Amino acid sequence: MKLYSANLTVALVHHPVVDKNGKTIAAAVTSLDLHDIARACRTFGVGAFYVVTPLEDQQDLVRQIIVHWVTGVGASYNPDRRSALGLIRLKSSLADVMDECRDADGRMPCTVVTSARMENSDLTCPDLKRMVREDRPVVLVFGTAWGLAPEAVRDADFRLAPIAGPGEYNHLAVRSAVAIILDRISGGR
Amino acid sequence: MKLYSANLTVALVHHPVVDKNGKTIAAAVTSLDLHDIARACRTFGVGAFYVVTPLEDQQDLVRQIIVHWVTGVGASYNPDRRSALGLIRLKSSLADVMDECRDADGRMPCTVVTSARMENSDLTCPDLKRMVREDRPVVLVFGTAWGLAPEAVRDADFRLAPIAGPGEYNHLAVRSAVAIILDRISGGR
Repeated sequence: MKLYSANLTVALVHHPVVDKNGKTIAAAVTSLDLHDIARACRTFGVGAFYVVTPLEDQQDLVRQIIVHWVTGVGASYNPDRRSALGLIRLKSSLADVMDECRDADGRMPCTVVTSARMENSDLTCPDLKRMVREDRPVVLVFGTAWGLAPEAVRDADFRLAPIAGPGEYNHLAVRSAVAIILDRISGGR
Repeated sequence: MKLYSANLTVALVHHPVVDKNGKTIAAAVTSLDLHDIARACRTFGVGAFYVVTPLEDQQDLVRQIIVHWVTGVGASYNPDRRSALGLIRLKSSLADVMDECRDADGRMPCTVVTSARMENSDLTCPDLKRMVREDRPVVLVFGTAWGLAPEAVRDADFRLAPIAGPGEYNHLAVRSAVAIILDRISGGR
C-alpha cells in the first residue's frame, strides 16, 4: 500500500479559532490532542503534523511535550509514542506552515479546512483521497475550541464536508475528527 | 438514515486489560475517554456507552463526571456535552453489561471485541455493519491501557480485525479507534 507522507500534512490550529460565542480567540494547547493526533498521523502515514499557536507560553508547552517524548525519558519508556510525536512541528501561524510546505519550485500546497459547522463545503473525503493519491500536496487544517474562525475557512482553497452520523448531533472531539478523516482517505481501507 | 441505537452498545473496559508488559491490571479511568467516546457514540447513534471498572474510587470518579455534565453546572454550560455524556452507564464487569443488555426474551447480545494486536480476527467492519443493520444486538468492546486481556478476547463471540494504515504502526488511542470503527459501520457513509 502507498504511503502518502510526502503529500499530506496535518495542521492543528489554535489561532484564529472561535469560542462558544463565536468570538475569535487563541485556544490553549491540549496535551492529549498532540498525542492522539500524532498517533493517528503516524498510523495513516501522514508526513508531518504542525501544531500552530502564536502564544509563547503555549509554544513552550509544546516544546516540553516533544522533548519529553522524542528525546527525553518518555522516548525510552514508550518508543511507539516517540515515533508518533516525532512528527510534530511547531509554528506560530498557518502562513508559516504553508511557507515551510512549499515544494522545490516554491509552489504552495493547497489548503483543505475542516469544520463541524461547514455551510458551504466544496470537497468530500473521496475527493480529498483522490487529490492526495494524485500527488497533490495538501495541508489538512483542523481548528481547536469551537472551530476555525470564519476567515480561515473562507480563505482556504477547499472546505471539507463535515462528518455526519445518522442524526443531527455532530459534536465530535477534534481528536476523533482527525482520526476519522485520515481513516476515510487512507489507502488501507 | 437509520439510527441503530437499539442494536449497538459500546463498552469501554478498564479490567481485565493488560499493561505494557502483558500483566493483567485494572486501569485508571481517563476523563477524556468518557467525553470523546460519548461524543462519538452520540454522533453515530449508539444507544448506550458502558464504562466498566471494578474499582470503587474509579466508579466514584465516573459518577462525578456524569453528575457534573448531565445534571450539574456542566449541563447548562454545554448542553451538547450533556446529551453525549447522558449515554454513559457504569458497571463493575462486562458480565454485568451483558446481563443488562439482554433482550425481552432474556437472550444475550453478541460480543465483538477489538484489539490493535488481534492475531485471530474473525470479523471485519463490513461484517459488523451488516450485523447491526440486521437488528442483531451487539456489544462492541474496547480495552484501555495496552488492550483487553487475552481471556476477554478469547471468550468473546467475535474478534474485529484491527485498524490498519499503510504501514506497520498501529498505536492509535482507544478514543481514536472507537471513532474510526463507529464511522466505518455507520449508515451515514
